[in-house]
Amino acid sequence: MQNQTLILVQCKDAVGLVSGLSNSIAKHQLNIITMREYVDEENNKFFVRILCSGLITSTEALLEDLCRVLPQNAKVQINPTNRKKLVVLVTKEHHCLADILTRHYFNTLQGEVQAVIGNYDTLKEFTEKFDLPFHHISHENRSKNDFEQEIINTINSYSPDYIILAKFMRILSPNFVQHFEHRLINIHHSFLPAFIGANPYKQAHDRGVKIIGATAHFVTDDLDEGPIIVQNTKSVDHSYDLSRMKTAGKEIEKAVLTRAIQLVMEDRVILNGNKTIVFKS
Amino acid sequence: MQNQTLILVQCKDAVGLVSGLSNSIAKHQLNIITMREYVDEENNKFFVRILCSGLITSTEALLEDLCRVLPQNAKVQINPTNRKKLVVLVTKEHHCLADILTRHYFNTLQGEVQAVIGNYDTLKEFTEKFDLPFHHISHENRSKNDFEQEIINTINSYSPDYIILAKFMRILSPNFVQHFEHRLINIHHSFLPAFIGANPYKQAHDRGVKIIGATAHFVTDDLDEGPIIVQNTKSVDHSYDLSRMKTAGKEIEKAVLTRAIQLVMEDRVILNGNKTIVFKS
Amino acid sequence: MQNQTLILVQCKDAVGLVSGLSNSIAKHQLNIITMREYVDEENNKFFVRILCSGLITSTEALLEDLCRVLPQNAKVQINPTNRKKLVVLVTKEHHCLADILTRHYFNTLQGEVQAVIGNYDTLKEFTEKFDLPFHHISHENRSKNDFEQEIINTINSYSPDYIILAKFMRILSPNFVQHFEHRLINIHHSFLPAFIGANPYKQAHDRGVKIIGATAHFVTDDLDEGPIIVQNTKSVDHSYDLSRMKTAGKEIEKAVLTRAIQLVMEDRVILNGNKTIVFKS
Amino acid sequence: MQNQTLILVQCKDAVGLVSGLSNSIAKHQLNIITMREYVDEENNKFFVRILCSGLITSTEALLEDLCRVLPQNAKVQINPTNRKKLVVLVTKEHHCLADILTRHYFNTLQGEVQAVIGNYDTLKEFTEKFDLPFHHISHENRSKNDFEQEIINTINSYSPDYIILAKFMRILSPNFVQHFEHRLINIHHSFLPAFIGANPYKQAHDRGVKIIGATAHFVTDDLDEGPIIVQNTKSVDHSYDLSRMKTAGKEIEKAVLTRAIQLVMEDRVILNGNKTIVFKS
Repeated sequence: MQNQTLILVQCKDAVGLVSGLSNSIAKHQLNIITMREYVDEENNKFFVRILCSGLITSTEALLEDLCRVLPQNAKVQINPTNRKKLVVLVTKEHHCLADILTRHYFNTLQGEVQAVIGNYDTLKEFTEKFDLPFHHISHENRSKNDFEQEIINTINSYSPDYIILAKFMRILSPNFVQHFEHRLINIHHSFLPAFIGANPYKQAHDRGVKIIGATAHFVTDDLDEGPIIVQNTKSVDHSYDLSRMKTAGKEIEKAVLTRAIQLVMEDRVILNGNKTIVFKS
Repeated sequence: MQNQTLILVQCKDAVGLVSGLSNSIAKHQLNIITMREYVDEENNKFFVRILCSGLITSTEALLEDLCRVLPQNAKVQINPTNRKKLVVLVTKEHHCLADILTRHYFNTLQGEVQAVIGNYDTLKEFTEKFDLPFHHISHENRSKNDFEQEIINTINSYSPDYIILAKFMRILSPNFVQHFEHRLINIHHSFLPAFIGANPYKQAHDRGVKIIGATAHFVTDDLDEGPIIVQNTKSVDHSYDLSRMKTAGKEIEKAVLTRAIQLVMEDRVILNGNKTIVFKS
Repeated sequence: MQNQTLILVQCKDAVGLVSGLSNSIAKHQLNIITMREYVDEENNKFFVRILCSGLITSTEALLEDLCRVLPQNAKVQINPTNRKKLVVLVTKEHHCLADILTRHYFNTLQGEVQAVIGNYDTLKEFTEKFDLPFHHISHENRSKNDFEQEIINTINSYSPDYIILAKFMRILSPNFVQHFEHRLINIHHSFLPAFIGANPYKQAHDRGVKIIGATAHFVTDDLDEGPIIVQNTKSVDHSYDLSRMKTAGKEIEKAVLTRAIQLVMEDRVILNGNKTIVFKS
Repeated sequence: MQNQTLILVQCKDAVGLVSGLSNSIAKHQLNIITMREYVDEENNKFFVRILCSGLITSTEALLEDLCRVLPQNAKVQINPTNRKKLVVLVTKEHHCLADILTRHYFNTLQGEVQAVIGNYDTLKEFTEKFDLPFHHISHENRSKNDFEQEIINTINSYSPDYIILAKFMRILSPNFVQHFEHRLINIHHSFLPAFIGANPYKQAHDRGVKIIGATAHFVTDDLDEGPIIVQNTKSVDHSYDLSRMKTAGKEIEKAVLTRAIQLVMEDRVILNGNKTIVFKS
């Protein structure tokens, strides 16, 4: 990302937006490498992600020029944090965390893991192999409010951009969710909206499905109802008992969550109400 | 399938079943080509599909020998109808029917389409190109009971083995379903159990899913709750409006229904309560 | 595609192209719906496909304005034929042709099939069901040159935009290929460049591959070496004998060829030397 | 795998093999859980993998009974080593090794990694995090023979069942390969037999393919020509430059190699000449 400038815009749709934006960009000696736009016709909204080669001398000047050609209340971001900070929450299952931490170690996650918080200490030893702090915050023998407040305090001590729920198996209160609005990414172990709630593999097994799936999504107040970022599926058959279904599912969960993190790290995911726009390329 | 003998067995699980069955089979000079078995441990049930080279001289004698080594109440089928008869029900959408009829014409469906019934006449001309009868039975200006009874009578005049609901868009009454128990195969245009009921693509689009799917299943009284035979999915993204989502979905619907029909035609699908066992190979 | 204007441009890469183009477009009261661009950095080439809402009053005026902001020798197309004409060549296998003709019949192919030419008459009856002319041009008892010349003449009598080789199993001479440069689309029954040449499934079976594939490509002088448009694959295993491998392969061949045709019909495929740029969305 | 007995047989095909084997098995109070068989008709060979519940009291007695009902020269294995030992060879790329070592650490690899050997020391630190020995054996400034002999000696000091080439980028001599016949598993970074040899992604990029792949295979004298165990593919498009193609490819390489290892660990892969039989379920 050296010598590149990334511009994100969302605003009311209007005639001439591409023209106006590209003129301003050209004026600042930037060359557009890729421009991906999307018009949400239903809601009359325009979204664009523009990657340019060339460095800007003044962010303020470019911002001012861009805003001049955009409708009022446009949201413009120029070079949003390009190495975002992450705190990861886990319970006992290792598969998502292991993938995140090894990618982080080898520098292919495109984000900066700051710490891991677990309501059990199962994954402490593994986390510490990578010289990362592990905070064991147990939910036992205390109120939910107390438990969540300690997590909130611990998270806040790192000021992360995003909090990753990497198979964190406690249901979070609306208070917690609001605290980190648009910053909580969860992996749900089913193909949402199928099998909302607890034990999705048990539900899937009982229903006799021929495909299982996983969903990475932003967390909102409504459990498992937040904007979907990535989903994927895998074929199964009658011979999969519950245990084998879970094992197969873990591979998808891991891949889906990692992919979602990478897309968010690269500012390719834009919230649009209860949906996401994902500019993959 | 010439010179081959197919044996299907389901019974209580017990020690020595494979040994007993294979002895009986060897005694009748049949050579096992493939044997696929499944034990449902939860319900203590044994299922096997055995394909043998060699023709039997007496079905009765083999049946008697097989039953001798099986628990009481075993269900044994020897060479179930090997070219099953089908009646297809449609409404206006052509994609599933077109795939079925062209495969039928070129003899790759492994079943015999006898007739098409439509509650509109939209697909009459296409059906008749293939020299197959098309019965237009309108649902308009009459009671549901009356409408269904005419369909039942028409179907019964063909004595089909299976009735294929190839995008038949009327909800069937429990009476109709019971009439053709275990013989009704439907294509639902979503990845069940997500988006049960009407307008699944609308539901999927509103939810902002990143994958759409289709499900072929046997029909039971509970709408969209019958045993699943085949499912498949396809990635979509934010740029898919409702219309494009439907178009993409039709490709999956068609492929999933055709695959289900082929599996059923080859006696590879066995009902096990509200699930299916599918011996693909 | 009503009330829409499609603009395709390829030229040397330069600073300010998007700005220049979008200004000209805005000047003509067109609103950009989607703009997909690609810069081939290796060859310093710029490609863009711009779909606009709004109709142009003068193609010439828009063309002139666009060329004014583009480098010399730019190739600009405004509203290329939006219902392209096709002639289909076949031998004996029906699967690709059946898919093309049923889609054509139901108006979902986005192109106009004018005629089918077969070196056998196997598919004559099927073709004529759809009220399309079938030309039986046998290769037997005549020179290759003579055979090809008759095909060329027959094709030319229709002036098609593209010629689809839908499992046409004769090797075409360089003369034939040059005659229809950039207009011949072939389906090769392997995952190119694996298994170039004859009997790819035999080669694949002998090699013990675990995946088979198909490739739709433009035809050039070098057999099976032309620019690839679409490829897809399917898992197989040791239990697939040659015949079952071929049957499975046909499903991929059909899907891949149809997809390639649809992409070409919508002007989403742009030749770039021996590669293609495919703007899928 | 507690309380289970695994039986693998390969022999000339004959009538009554399943019957004979299942009788012997029943006689030893074992209950067949799954029996997967394959008949290679071309070569008249029979292969079977039988998993039974129940423990045998005498392997010798069962072996004797099984051989009594089998043709001469049958190869029978009863409970082959159920936790196989592995030595992993690497160069500089981490992705395959990281996946193997984290799975090993969390006990989901089904094999025992004993040591890692690298011709660079790039992955030493990572390996040692998991308390495994890393042997740095450089190829520089010495003969190939000398280099390979040191690797052979090091491998032999562990007596592993299999040697995994996890992106080991040195071409091995026939002498080395013969030393570990049928025990060397390699990951090739293309969809074999496409792009044999060096720089497959460069070749794939130059050819303009729309799908890339990876192949895990046993190594034989002929470079990249050994029996294929697992293959998988992923769609790419024109926008993938060489670097992005490599990055995408690494995900497939990793998944394919790990899957191949797991299948081999569970004795699901059987060599049959230059092909493999893989009993996945």
